[in-house]
Amino acid sequence: MVVVMDLQAAGEQVQTVVARLEGLGFKAHLIHGIKRIVIGAVGDRRALDLRELELMPGVERVVPIMKPYKLVSREAKEEDSLVTVGQTVIGGSELVVCAGPCAVESREQLLAAARLVKQAGARVLRGGAFKPRTSPYSFQGLEEKGLQLMAEAAAETGLATVTEVVDAYSLEVAVQYVDILQVGARNMQNFRLLQMAGRAGKPVLLKRGLSATIEEWLMAAEYIVSEGNEKVILCERGIRTFENATRNTLDLSAVPLVKNLSHLPVIVDPSHATGDRRLVAPMARAAVAAGADGLIVEVHPDPARALCDGQQSLNPAQFAAMMQELRAVAAAVGRAA
Amino acid sequence: MVVVMDLQAAGEQVQTVVARLEGLGFKAHLIHGIKRIVIGAVGDRRALDLRELELMPGVERVVPIMKPYKLVSREAKEEDSLVTVGQTVIGGSELVVCAGPCAVESREQLLAAARLVKQAGARVLRGGAFKPRTSPYSFQGLEEKGLQLMAEAAAETGLATVTEVVDAYSLEVAVQYVDILQVGARNMQNFRLLQMAGRAGKPVLLKRGLSATIEEWLMAAEYIVSEGNEKVILCERGIRTFENATRNTLDLSAVPLVKNLSHLPVIVDPSHATGDRRLVAPMARAAVAAGADGLIVEVHPDPARALCDGQQSLNPAQFAAMMQELRAVAAAVGRAA
Amino acid sequence: MVVVMDLQAAGEQVQTVVARLEGLGFKAHLIHGIKRIVIGAVGDRRALDLRELELMPGVERVVPIMKPYKLVSREAKEEDSLVTVGQTVIGGSELVVCAGPCAVESREQLLAAARLVKQAGARVLRGGAFKPRTSPYSFQGLEEKGLQLMAEAAAETGLATVTEVVDAYSLEVAVQYVDILQVGARNMQNFRLLQMAGRAGKPVLLKRGLSATIEEWLMAAEYIVSEGNEKVILCERGIRTFENATRNTLDLSAVPLVKNLSHLPVIVDPSHATGDRRLVAPMARAAVAAGADGLIVEVHPDPARALCDGQQSLNPAQFAAMMQELRAVAAAVGRAA
Amino acid sequence: MVVVMDLQAAGEQVQTVVARLEGLGFKAHLIHGIKRIVIGAVGDRRALDLRELELMPGVERVVPIMKPYKLVSREAKEEDSLVTVGQTVIGGSELVVCAGPCAVESREQLLAAARLVKQAGARVLRGGAFKPRTSPYSFQGLEEKGLQLMAEAAAETGLATVTEVVDAYSLEVAVQYVDILQVGARNMQNFRLLQMAGRAGKPVLLKRGLSATIEEWLMAAEYIVSEGNEKVILCERGIRTFENATRNTLDLSAVPLVKNLSHLPVIVDPSHATGDRRLVAPMARAAVAAGADGLIVEVHPDPARALCDGQQSLNPAQFAAMMQELRAVAAAVGRAA
Repeated sequence: MVVVMDLQAAGEQVQTVVARLEGLGFKAHLIHGIKRIVIGAVGDRRALDLRELELMPGVERVVPIMKPYKLVSREAKEEDSLVTVGQTVIGGSELVVCAGPCAVESREQLLAAARLVKQAGARVLRGGAFKPRTSPYSFQGLEEKGLQLMAEAAAETGLATVTEVVDAYSLEVAVQYVDILQVGARNMQNFRLLQMAGRAGKPVLLKRGLSATIEEWLMAAEYIVSEGNEKVILCERGIRTFENATRNTLDLSAVPLVKNLSHLPVIVDPSHATGDRRLVAPMARAAVAAGADGLIVEVHPDPARALCDGQQSLNPAQFAAMMQELRAVAAAVGRAA
Repeated sequence: MVVVMDLQAAGEQVQTVVARLEGLGFKAHLIHGIKRIVIGAVGDRRALDLRELELMPGVERVVPIMKPYKLVSREAKEEDSLVTVGQTVIGGSELVVCAGPCAVESREQLLAAARLVKQAGARVLRGGAFKPRTSPYSFQGLEEKGLQLMAEAAAETGLATVTEVVDAYSLEVAVQYVDILQVGARNMQNFRLLQMAGRAGKPVLLKRGLSATIEEWLMAAEYIVSEGNEKVILCERGIRTFENATRNTLDLSAVPLVKNLSHLPVIVDPSHATGDRRLVAPMARAAVAAGADGLIVEVHPDPARALCDGQQSLNPAQFAAMMQELRAVAAAVGRAA
Repeated sequence: MVVVMDLQAAGEQVQTVVARLEGLGFKAHLIHGIKRIVIGAVGDRRALDLRELELMPGVERVVPIMKPYKLVSREAKEEDSLVTVGQTVIGGSELVVCAGPCAVESREQLLAAARLVKQAGARVLRGGAFKPRTSPYSFQGLEEKGLQLMAEAAAETGLATVTEVVDAYSLEVAVQYVDILQVGARNMQNFRLLQMAGRAGKPVLLKRGLSATIEEWLMAAEYIVSEGNEKVILCERGIRTFENATRNTLDLSAVPLVKNLSHLPVIVDPSHATGDRRLVAPMARAAVAAGADGLIVEVHPDPARALCDGQQSLNPAQFAAMMQELRAVAAAVGRAA
Repeated sequence: MVVVMDLQAAGEQVQTVVARLEGLGFKAHLIHGIKRIVIGAVGDRRALDLRELELMPGVERVVPIMKPYKLVSREAKEEDSLVTVGQTVIGGSELVVCAGPCAVESREQLLAAARLVKQAGARVLRGGAFKPRTSPYSFQGLEEKGLQLMAEAAAETGLATVTEVVDAYSLEVAVQYVDILQVGARNMQNFRLLQMAGRAGKPVLLKRGLSATIEEWLMAAEYIVSEGNEKVILCERGIRTFENATRNTLDLSAVPLVKNLSHLPVIVDPSHATGDRRLVAPMARAAVAAGADGLIVEVHPDPARALCDGQQSLNPAQFAAMMQELRAVAAAVGRAA
């Protein structure tokens, strides 16, 4: 950590900062610049709130050198982490596609969806039973009944399953029925939920928050891993920007960047990112080309009758065509699919 | 609601949309434009997910006319809502200042803070006991012990109290000790928490999410009010933008705009918005001039030793000076303080 | 266009708006909603500033139905536009790569760069001679001397050339030496420059502004085309968001979306978008997979000695490796490279 | 400047960086951290592009310590700069209001506007003659004819005048007729225009770009001042964010922050920032309370007939009422108005 002193910082202010740093277990190195003094502080800042130092008299700002996350970093573990769910390995050489409806609506709908995504090559079935909705007047999900249907669809098709959890109750129910717990974008900094997900022991699919920096996203993963659960799958799903021609802005650069910073697998959700059926397949192809370990895509047997997010759902034919294209792109970047 | 059809939409596609609208209880009006057909649909869209229509064949997009919120809108209630806490009325002619430390750290710290903010003219004591922290390695709060100290400080000083709740447990504890429950920015779309806060019956201070639009913020308030709790206080606390010279960007225009759209009181948090002690007083003055009903400000008896957010906390002298300035500005805009 | 009236709009206010619309050549259709009146206005709004209507008494807002751009839209011209430069066609079945240094620095540097990008398969040489720099104290470019070197490199290698123009003078000089004029991101709404580029007759590579919406970008292209120059190549180069782990956020969804909205070719600049050498190749592959017609990439014979943007420049070996990868991805999406 | 080396940086890589720094005239100090080496470099980085260092082998990143601007900084000049135009001083104890129509439309309109803003207490008349418009099909301004009318209005009322310049020609014409040259938001990084404005000798009102950081804004001012023209007035006019309930997001924190960083006067444009007449007066009051040195406000004798930006223009009565309110707020913060 580097502490930059004010232009006018008095000598005793510098000494007070040095003393404080040493009291906190850091070793301090003074650098006398042309106009100001800079203090290099050697030690582990993770337990420290930098702002504490920043408001000492004479301090202009504090520049961290180490990353704030530890367990999820590449520095902590060089080789890629693999998350295994049944026979499916996420993060390995094979591209893994999760697909299914936004919300579980009925037995017919879900089984139809499961069969069709299975046939087209998906490995994991997605389906929401506890829906976080912007409006209190919108459909909120089938809850436990929906999860029972997920389990039935899994039993029939052999697909693994993923569903979103939103609080203690939904998590408690979900662990009984599904293979992967999803923490949604709006809950990425719901730290209680992250801790519970960490303790649940099941793999966690952690979506990036709408306005979360990559560092905050990795810190959210650190919450889960620090509870002893290393099975975290990161999911880029678009961030909020000024551009509103798409629902969100898919930040695809995050894929290679996060794979540089962390050992965790990274997948991409082109459906929520774009909110536009026409853009799902091109962005899915782009995600694979950028190095994503997998995708999570909304597919509905009859999108025009979907109870949520129909506009961004693919119909069966569109999904099958996309899977075909993905195989070619995956092969081009040296990946099985 | 207005449904804009594609340039190439076939006549039967138009008819299918019209039939669907009528099935949903809307009355449809066709307008034949130069190049395309536009359908005006008269009815209540609140129960409807617009995206359902958007993916019907031939539909280009759907433009909502009515606001998605109802109970919190000015249209539903013309006069300003007042939230009364003990002898303090928020939303009325008097400017109400909430102040106190970011986190409750000790009996000494909290009582000192309570006395000093009381003396300078604050009406509500703020203090965090359950802290949502970006890092799992940071101080997480004194929990129930902290809330007992809040109650003690309230008893001694006569101040009302506000604290943040983050889940079912913290909410259950908090309602026993404090007067106002705060839902933080990172939980603004934690819909379960909003529902619980709605059912708790106590006034709720609802912070705007870092990347929440004003419409989403009002929808979050709608969640609380739709549970039967009308005592919602909105709090603008800065949004996330590209500018990082300040911690967030205080969106002060939201104050007069929200007061136009809604009958709920609006207060401003210049401490979290700027993250910079030097900017707190100017932005507090600006908030009052813009029409805010109150402020929530971080004050610490000794900011340099604060366990969290010290950099943005005022010391006692700075707070007293700010309160003095606010009185003058409040008077200039016809408000008591 | 749809005019939404206020809840309280008086009947005579509605009549005034209708009269005004008719005076402007529109046909007005009244729709009586549950709570308010909505007016559908049929006619061409392009010459009209919508805000003029929005402030008439009783009007709440105006919703445009038609897009504001005309000549660049798919509606105006269904088939893809091809921009031909020498033997190279941009927008056709072949992927076109432009590459070269950020700034022309010397004869040796430029010729070395030209030879190496040519050999690796690039078709167009990029090189800046008039550099818009954030700091007045940074290297500003070799100006005409640099362009003479571009022409020399083109003559030797057979590559086409592209360079940025920043004002009337640089444009006047550039047309004498290079094949394609680039309008940079910071000048995307320098409307005088757009008009001059439109009149210059040469193909124009139009970068998207840092904070330009897709609609504004297409309107900037409309400026050029409305001067009679249809040879516009759009270039996505990243937008400014809250995320600062990368220099900008590459908005790759813009590629398929713009190809939907417009007939103009679209290329991608992964170098400026990411500002990070390690991310250039993955994002280049992703751009091709998303359907981009080409790329523009910074390559430097010796990036560590570059006078500008070295951090994002590829060295010769990295560029050759990337070109190899691009060929595979291009083939996977049915494109020659 | 601090150079942070990679975890795996080899000793010779460190030595190469040190040698390079010394070659550039810096003095290098090595700090051996727990895991990595950090190099403190003492010297003037202004002439240096940091990215040059960042791509040397073994370097992870470079952290600047000094600000990139010099002449405009408070460090260079402690006391506030005053910009004098006729009898009006901007940046002193008096609040200065610039007001007038978005565009000069006719002699009648402009003279009416000039008289009414003069009478209500404005000191400077604004009016656009060269309009940068998003659409090539919109009204582009009266050009020189408009400036002659500005001069006539100034002669009659004694008001100073300000108008926007967009290129060499408009600047050349404008200097003959008006007192202050405005560089608009979309041209904030049109560096050629900044240099020309710097050489023109007249005061320059420099609007902040839609997506410009405060540092970039001050660098743009540095361009002007480095040409020898110290008479720069900074103008905050809203930035582009995800929120679209207002036209832009007024970043009022920029006012006290910039006054901390720079000696230049800062004014605020609440009209363009909000794009909404109803928000202009509250935001103008807030700006004054935050410490702005002045305002620039759109006023039109008959906003409903304005050729541009009517929606955000005040009518005469609204403007007079606002001026009344501003006097009270100005007095409350110790300022004459």
